[in-house]
Amino acid sequence: MKENANGKDISPCKVYRVSGSEVCETSDLLSVEEPLEIRVSSLVEKQMLTQQIAVTMRTPGQDSDLALGFLFTEGVLSGSEDVKEIKTIGCNVIDVVLKDHVQVDPAIFARHSFVASSCGVCGKRSIDAVKTRRNYKAANPFPRVDANIIHSLPEKLRSIQMAFSTTGGIHASGLFDLQGELLSLKEDVGRHNALDKLIGACARQNMLPLDQHIVLFSGRASFELVQKAAHAGATILAAVGAPSSLAVQLAEESGVTLLGFVRDNRFNIYTGVSAVESDHFCASSKQ
Amino acid sequence: MKENANGKDISPCKVYRVSGSEVCETSDLLSVEEPLEIRVSSLVEKQMLTQQIAVTMRTPGQDSDLALGFLFTEGVLSGSEDVKEIKTIGCNVIDVVLKDHVQVDPAIFARHSFVASSCGVCGKRSIDAVKTRRNYKAANPFPRVDANIIHSLPEKLRSIQMAFSTTGGIHASGLFDLQGELLSLKEDVGRHNALDKLIGACARQNMLPLDQHIVLFSGRASFELVQKAAHAGATILAAVGAPSSLAVQLAEESGVTLLGFVRDNRFNIYTGVSAVESDHFCASSKQ
Repeated sequence: MKENANGKDISPCKVYRVSGSEVCETSDLLSVEEPLEIRVSSLVEKQMLTQQIAVTMRTPGQDSDLALGFLFTEGVLSGSEDVKEIKTIGCNVIDVVLKDHVQVDPAIFARHSFVASSCGVCGKRSIDAVKTRRNYKAANPFPRVDANIIHSLPEKLRSIQMAFSTTGGIHASGLFDLQGELLSLKEDVGRHNALDKLIGACARQNMLPLDQHIVLFSGRASFELVQKAAHAGATILAAVGAPSSLAVQLAEESGVTLLGFVRDNRFNIYTGVSAVESDHFCASSKQ
Repeated sequence: MKENANGKDISPCKVYRVSGSEVCETSDLLSVEEPLEIRVSSLVEKQMLTQQIAVTMRTPGQDSDLALGFLFTEGVLSGSEDVKEIKTIGCNVIDVVLKDHVQVDPAIFARHSFVASSCGVCGKRSIDAVKTRRNYKAANPFPRVDANIIHSLPEKLRSIQMAFSTTGGIHASGLFDLQGELLSLKEDVGRHNALDKLIGACARQNMLPLDQHIVLFSGRASFELVQKAAHAGATILAAVGAPSSLAVQLAEESGVTLLGFVRDNRFNIYTGVSAVESDHFCASSKQ
C-alpha cells in the first residue's frame, strides 16, 4: 500500500492562505501532474516499429501499470502476456515493447494516434507553447479583487446550479466580473467541456480577452483548465477544489492569479497574490 | 441563465435507494453524457475538406459554443471571426465551417486527428463496441455483496488515502474483495489514470477478470470508467459520486452492478439490484 509514497506524487509549495480578510503566508502540498507519453513498439514486417499512442496528464508513479492498464482497457493489448518489455525513457516517456508474435490491428494505432491537445511531453514545452500562443496585451488596468468578493463566488455559482442541476454529477464553470456579479454559467459532465462552452460563448459575443473577470471552476484546477483559460486571456482563476502542481507552474509563468479551495470563507492564493486586496496580512507574510 | 434548462441535460431513472440495510425503489435524475464529434470544414486547394478533430463526452446543449471554445482554446481557430457557419448534423455531430480565407496549419489537424478511445459517435455504437470486446464468461458464482460491506468501503479508501495524500487534489480507485477487504489502491490527478493503474497492476498479477471483486471510484462514474472496468471483467462498481446517464446505460447492457453516491451509510443502486443483499426491502420495491 506504500506504492504511492514514492516522493514524486506530492510537491510542496508556498501559498497565501486567506481566511475572512486575513492573509497569511504558509505552505501547502500539491498533487503532482505531469504528462506521460505512451509508445508501443511492435514487429511490423520484420521491422521494429515504435508508435506514439497517447499522451496523458498523470501523477508520476506506477507508470508501467498505467501504460499496461491503458493499452489493455483501450483494446490495444489482450493482456500482460502480450508484453515483452516495458522501457522507461527519461521521466515522462514509456515504451511498451510487444512480443514478436503479437499482431496489433493498424486501425487501433490510427484510432489512438493522437498527441494530447497542445501538450508536449515535458511540462516546460507545454508551458512554452501556451505562452507563445497567448498574444493578448498585458491587462490594463491589471485587475485586483477584494477577498470578500472571492468568498462570495461559490455560493453564487451553487445557487444558480441548484436551479438547473439536481443530479450532483455535473461540473460548472462560471464567469464573474470584478465586482463578483455572475455573467455566465456553463455546466457539463466534463470539466473541460464546461470551460470550453464558457469560452466559446464569450468568443461568439466578442468578450475576449477575459482580463477584467474572474473564472471560477466548481472542481479542481488541472493544467488543461488553466491552459484553456489563459488562452482566453483570463487573469484571475478560482477553483473550489485543489490545483495540481503543473497548473500552479503554468499560472505562475503566464502571470495568472490562481486561487484554490475557494469555500467556507477561505481560499489559498497559489500565484499572483498582488491581485487580491486585503488589509490584514499576517506578520510572516510581510517579510 | 436558462440556457442549460433545455431538457437534454437531465435524464430521469429508476433507482433503489439503500439507507442502512433498507432498500427502497425510487427515482433519481442523471446528468446526461453523450459523445460529440467535432468536425472542421475548410477550403484546401479550392476543395472543401471536412476533417474529424475530436470526439468528446459531453452533456448535450450549447454544442456550438462547446465546439467553438474547444477549437479556440486548442489553437485551431483564432476566434469566432474565422467561422463561416456551424452545422449540426444529427444530434451528436457538429461541423464548424471556416471562412474561405482561413488557413489551418495541417500540423494542427495531424495533432488533433484522433477519435476518442474506443468511443463511437453514438452511445449505442460505443456500448456495442465494449460488449463485443469483453469476452469473459459470466461470473460464476455471480457475486453478491451485503449492503453493510458497501457502506464500509469509502471509509477504508479514505483512511489509506489520508496516509499518502494530503493534497485534497487526487482521485483514487480501490479494489476490494466481496468481504470488503481492500486489495489495492491507486491514486492519480486523472480519474481514468487511477483506474488504468489499478487494472494494469491486476493484469500484471494475472488477477483478471475482476468478477469476484468490488471496484470503488472516489469520484463520479463516467461512461469511460465503467467501460474500462467492464473491459477488465468487473461486475460490481461503486462510486462515491454520481453516475452519468451513459454510465448507467452501459452498466445495464453489460450486466454490471452500478452503485452511486456511496457515502454516509447510504447509496443508490442504478443497475443490478440482485447483487446487493438486504433483508429490508420497502413495500414499493416488492411490487
